[in-house]
Amino acid sequence: MSNLNVVGKPIPKLDAAQKALGRAQYIQDIKLPEMLYGKILYSKFAHAKIININTSKAEKLSGVYAVLTGKDVPKKMKMGFYKDNPPIKKDKVCSFRDEVAAVAALSPEIAEKALSLIEIEYKELKGIFDPEKAMEKESPLVHEYHKSNVLKLPWKLHYGDVEKAEKESDFIVKEKFKTTWVTHCCLGTSGAVALFDSNDNLTIHTNTQIPSLAQKDFLEALRSMGLENKRVRVIKPTIGGGFGSKLDTYAYEHIAILLAHKTRKPVKIIFDRKEEFKATSTRQPAIIYIKQGCNKDGKLTFRDIKMVLDNGAYTSWGATTPSVMMMPITSLYRVENVRYKAKCVYTNNTYSQAMRGYGNPQATFAIESNLDMLAQKAGIDRIEIRRINQNQPGDITPQGFKISSCGLSKCIDKVEKELKKDCKKQENVGTGIASLIHVGGGARIYKSDGCGVILKMDDYGKVDIFTGGTDMGQGLDNITAQIVAEELGLFVEDINVVHSDTDICPWDVGAHASRSTFVAGNAALGAAQKIKEKILKFASKILDASIKDLILRDRTIFVKDNSEKNIPPKSIAIDKLLRKAHFSPNGTMLMADYFYDPDNENMGKDFKGNMSVTYAFGVHGVKLTVDKETGKVEILDYIAAHDVGRAINPLLLEGQVYGGVVMGLGYALTEEVMHKNGENMNADFRDYKLFTAKDAIKIKAPVIETNDKYGPFGAKGIGEPGCVPTAPAIANAIYDAVGVRIKDLPITPEKVLAALKEKSLQE
Amino acid sequence: MSNLNVVGKPIPKLDAAQKALGRAQYIQDIKLPEMLYGKILYSKFAHAKIININTSKAEKLSGVYAVLTGKDVPKKMKMGFYKDNPPIKKDKVCSFRDEVAAVAALSPEIAEKALSLIEIEYKELKGIFDPEKAMEKESPLVHEYHKSNVLKLPWKLHYGDVEKAEKESDFIVKEKFKTTWVTHCCLGTSGAVALFDSNDNLTIHTNTQIPSLAQKDFLEALRSMGLENKRVRVIKPTIGGGFGSKLDTYAYEHIAILLAHKTRKPVKIIFDRKEEFKATSTRQPAIIYIKQGCNKDGKLTFRDIKMVLDNGAYTSWGATTPSVMMMPITSLYRVENVRYKAKCVYTNNTYSQAMRGYGNPQATFAIESNLDMLAQKAGIDRIEIRRINQNQPGDITPQGFKISSCGLSKCIDKVEKELKKDCKKQENVGTGIASLIHVGGGARIYKSDGCGVILKMDDYGKVDIFTGGTDMGQGLDNITAQIVAEELGLFVEDINVVHSDTDICPWDVGAHASRSTFVAGNAALGAAQKIKEKILKFASKILDASIKDLILRDRTIFVKDNSEKNIPPKSIAIDKLLRKAHFSPNGTMLMADYFYDPDNENMGKDFKGNMSVTYAFGVHGVKLTVDKETGKVEILDYIAAHDVGRAINPLLLEGQVYGGVVMGLGYALTEEVMHKNGENMNADFRDYKLFTAKDAIKIKAPVIETNDKYGPFGAKGIGEPGCVPTAPAIANAIYDAVGVRIKDLPITPEKVLAALKEKSLQE
Repeated sequence: MSNLNVVGKPIPKLDAAQKALGRAQYIQDIKLPEMLYGKILYSKFAHAKIININTSKAEKLSGVYAVLTGKDVPKKMKMGFYKDNPPIKKDKVCSFRDEVAAVAALSPEIAEKALSLIEIEYKELKGIFDPEKAMEKESPLVHEYHKSNVLKLPWKLHYGDVEKAEKESDFIVKEKFKTTWVTHCCLGTSGAVALFDSNDNLTIHTNTQIPSLAQKDFLEALRSMGLENKRVRVIKPTIGGGFGSKLDTYAYEHIAILLAHKTRKPVKIIFDRKEEFKATSTRQPAIIYIKQGCNKDGKLTFRDIKMVLDNGAYTSWGATTPSVMMMPITSLYRVENVRYKAKCVYTNNTYSQAMRGYGNPQATFAIESNLDMLAQKAGIDRIEIRRINQNQPGDITPQGFKISSCGLSKCIDKVEKELKKDCKKQENVGTGIASLIHVGGGARIYKSDGCGVILKMDDYGKVDIFTGGTDMGQGLDNITAQIVAEELGLFVEDINVVHSDTDICPWDVGAHASRSTFVAGNAALGAAQKIKEKILKFASKILDASIKDLILRDRTIFVKDNSEKNIPPKSIAIDKLLRKAHFSPNGTMLMADYFYDPDNENMGKDFKGNMSVTYAFGVHGVKLTVDKETGKVEILDYIAAHDVGRAINPLLLEGQVYGGVVMGLGYALTEEVMHKNGENMNADFRDYKLFTAKDAIKIKAPVIETNDKYGPFGAKGIGEPGCVPTAPAIANAIYDAVGVRIKDLPITPEKVLAALKEKSLQE
Repeated sequence: MSNLNVVGKPIPKLDAAQKALGRAQYIQDIKLPEMLYGKILYSKFAHAKIININTSKAEKLSGVYAVLTGKDVPKKMKMGFYKDNPPIKKDKVCSFRDEVAAVAALSPEIAEKALSLIEIEYKELKGIFDPEKAMEKESPLVHEYHKSNVLKLPWKLHYGDVEKAEKESDFIVKEKFKTTWVTHCCLGTSGAVALFDSNDNLTIHTNTQIPSLAQKDFLEALRSMGLENKRVRVIKPTIGGGFGSKLDTYAYEHIAILLAHKTRKPVKIIFDRKEEFKATSTRQPAIIYIKQGCNKDGKLTFRDIKMVLDNGAYTSWGATTPSVMMMPITSLYRVENVRYKAKCVYTNNTYSQAMRGYGNPQATFAIESNLDMLAQKAGIDRIEIRRINQNQPGDITPQGFKISSCGLSKCIDKVEKELKKDCKKQENVGTGIASLIHVGGGARIYKSDGCGVILKMDDYGKVDIFTGGTDMGQGLDNITAQIVAEELGLFVEDINVVHSDTDICPWDVGAHASRSTFVAGNAALGAAQKIKEKILKFASKILDASIKDLILRDRTIFVKDNSEKNIPPKSIAIDKLLRKAHFSPNGTMLMADYFYDPDNENMGKDFKGNMSVTYAFGVHGVKLTVDKETGKVEILDYIAAHDVGRAINPLLLEGQVYGGVVMGLGYALTEEVMHKNGENMNADFRDYKLFTAKDAIKIKAPVIETNDKYGPFGAKGIGEPGCVPTAPAIANAIYDAVGVRIKDLPITPEKVLAALKEKSLQE
């Protein structure tokens, strides 16, 4: 392992130049012959009955090819985890983002004009926008057929005996925390181009992180349209950001499909920025009631959490974030007695989706804020309480997670050392830390957590690898290429990674759960190992040497120098060897396929099961100052230490951490999708306070390598962790600086000021 | 074999609807961002020195991005089999199609205008246009550095003892035959789009039949430009006809590469029809001196052939057609003593290339015309002499060809029966027949005759197959899909064939030598068999049945009814089985790769070797009438019987035969690229007399199935044979009708009239 030539090197992104030159093809760039442009009309109300729709004027507009309303949507075409969301609504709208009509026309302008000609008569209904209120009996129902606004979802666990542990605890802190909507702010807005061939097979170019699962969704859509036994090809163009926003299929994709089928032409739907803010799905907001206890020694005795999640009007993956929130709740630090219960509640707000961390930032905000309060109450140092309870290699957590490697202890040491470098206490300056656990070896949330890979080599020593893994900007192409190059003794420029086309690439469950480096990496490694075996076997014949004496390096197969036997070192260039293998009797070319499905477990009914083969850990530490006059927080120092197993590419790894932390800082301090009675009030970058380049701070990102035995070259996934513990680290540091505890995000200057004022009134 | 469900069915071309709808993407349709348009300037003389080229005016024209002349071409950038052809000529032009400059500009119009601004000063040289004269010592040299106009090529063989056999023969006929230039007349004209990425890797969309060999050529081109260790991706768009014209790389492709590299933009070069006629390569013209002998019983005693081939000014595959001419010369009918010698001679004419049949039509024209004359001389029935000498299964021919299956005898019977249906002898009506042998099981003319295939199945029972085989309109996609569907118990619509992209598809030597059905078919079958094995193994577990009792049919795996054991018949749908395999612990998805390189042999120095694993045979019979006033030939009946092993798709097979015969009829009767001192005089469809739809006749195409043991489901290749024996069958029938023997092609009314006139003078 010490002798790696490609893995571990900070190789810039393979597609960087193409992107810089403007040659990467984004969905916006795709233009097909005869293509039409689709546009969607959204509801004018948060909650209303549709009395009548008149599309006749729109249909008569020159250049309009099709107008769709809810009655054109097949009954069985429903989207999302709960199948409660038709792509166009028919009798009733339940949120401002509800689709009520769609148009395909020769140009986006004509389509837009056509939308303005559609006349809709609504009867407004009383809306419900607070999930806790929505649980009350007298509240209006978002969906009458559902009888209750509370979803029938099984988010409930209890391990050990929380009530007994609570009674036996020396210290207990009970608190309420709150998080709100934030959104992914992908620089590339959403879009799709759908077209049918003459046999009603569908090709759809779409911004997705889940080509294989999207294919499944679209096959279902076709079946709902009466198109049985058809083929769906999903092609993902270059995408400008994913962050979980593309983990589910959207109404615009289904509408593009319906329009393409009706018009028999390719139909393109592209979101503008306003639509991107209003009609894509946010991070799941949560109201969190938490109680934690410890004994005199600081050992955690129990953790008891209840949550209410604002589900919005429809159900996508946001409603399933509790399944991931369970991870920090049951497994961040050693805690034997755990209880958790979450309710997802329909409201007339926007609905949520996956977003980097998938519930973990929400849960960790509550846990780590509350832990600081508990430490204070118990009179134990904040860092010390974390050391006392830290996870260890070999642990099996209450949920059944098997901790293989664990660098949490080293991360705590590292962050502590950095934070204490300058230990003079200054006024209004504080430090805070928070830890994280996250899946780092896949996450079995679907029936398969697998990734397929096909690899072929040509006569020139070049590799084409078709991977199920999806590069959405995170750099999976590099990871794949570096792993294959390392294994085969090649250079990254010898490896061509083909991805994101379901016709070409084998199945993969998608780019989520920080799983790609680990799962797609292991799949690539498996295929490369199969090829390597063939190379070695053939080389051993050609070089008249034992396989164990052969080394692949620098595009060459070398025989280890064996001076004892007095054999001069021999070698053959790999391209020459490949040509020998090809151009000989019964010649062959080297190809291999590999399907890697990690050895993790679906959670059982009690939510027990080793969801991931290995887990990533990290600790964030922050030093900041609070301006007591303005409430403004200024970050002075930020350290984000992560146990990543091994850095396949330190450059990209740091990029992931920096990006994650900056996203976490936005979550902590500035970002919020503001809703007023269900209506998005800040659907632009002026009013949505994204953390931008000018706000970005210098982040130290020390890498702790624990060389996980299951990871490809020891690596774990690290896509999400960067944004997980940022908010609590900051909340803890603010408390340390000025003595106020902010319990709902974002921690705006207004909230800090208000808390300072309240504090001074109490004093 | 009797129970085939998909193989043997006349399934229409899978891409027919896409083509009919205008959605197939031809090279003409490809448009890339920032694309420039290239144009080529050709020589004004057949033979001249270039004294000076002034490009300054062209360079100054607005919209011009690059102007190239010979001095911009790397010294080592040479094309063709003999590497004598730089893509732009520098000091000297040797034919009218010589490229002297090229331009890339914003539009084709600007590029054209720029060409007109290039000033070239030539000094004309004496040209040489007759290959036999060019062999004379005092003739001007086409290439001074070559010292002689005769190419140093090894086309020479002698098996048995021809001189002895000649002495011992009872009858001998010695004759001279002549064939001229004809061209492929692809409806889609030639073209390419080249572009470089930021790392100087090349992608080229180009009309080619040999993606993998073109890749090799272009890699060499890059190396000549100093670009080492780069990647070349060759993508073949839908092409409108190949027929051998796209078996070599052309100057326009190299020029597109040079222009793309110089401008750093995609550059597209598309031929107009005139250019297509003038600057693509024709069938190789030949002057053939033939002597054949037989004994009193009609048994062939020897065959002695000398040829002079007009090589034109440069050397592409036309110069290698003698290697294929050897096939009919040594192996059409049983003949033990064979001698053959061919000289390729430089002239200032156009140079030739591969064209359907690859020399076989030329050689067979001489052999089969001469054979009729020999039969007459020996007083033996024309059909009888063919029966006496017919090839038989198990034969090993003098060249070492091993005849596995052979339906020649049955073909003769079939054609005789058809021709004799109406046996009243009418005035000026005659019949003629001619036979053919052709490679039907690959042709090892390159170091590998292989084809790679990768196959993957999804969760829905659908197959994606990446084949090295190239569909150029002949319908290989169908053949591949039918073979895979048959083997896996699926329907063709379940099979998606991905081809013609070197990044995706494994290596294949190219679409030539009628090898695709056999070689690519066997490769597809091999991969399907590997998948089938996995399916059966898994199904045997699921269905609790022995593998040998399982049948794949109608997308289902059935257990054979076994009433003895009283087990009720069981089954499982294939998609369900695949999902079971995928979504289970240690789940996997089915993928397989296969590289099939047929067990044929490269010819040795003496040109012996079993070039093909099996051989196709055929007999064409024609009944026609000759108008003695006009010399015009009218075909009354045409039978083309072929031993195809097995018809994988009878519809496409008939299409191949019809198309081949019509091409053969043009070759026989109307087509000729007319040259006057090296200049093409009929570069358009008005003056080039292509056999068109209105000339086409009803052709009977009986299929003889010999079920070859090496072929996929018994099939042999049949792409070329249709045009091989057409001309001699017609020449023989004309002789039978009116007693004149036309020995040079095409058999125009003028030639027939002249012969009739000469005959009447002699009588």
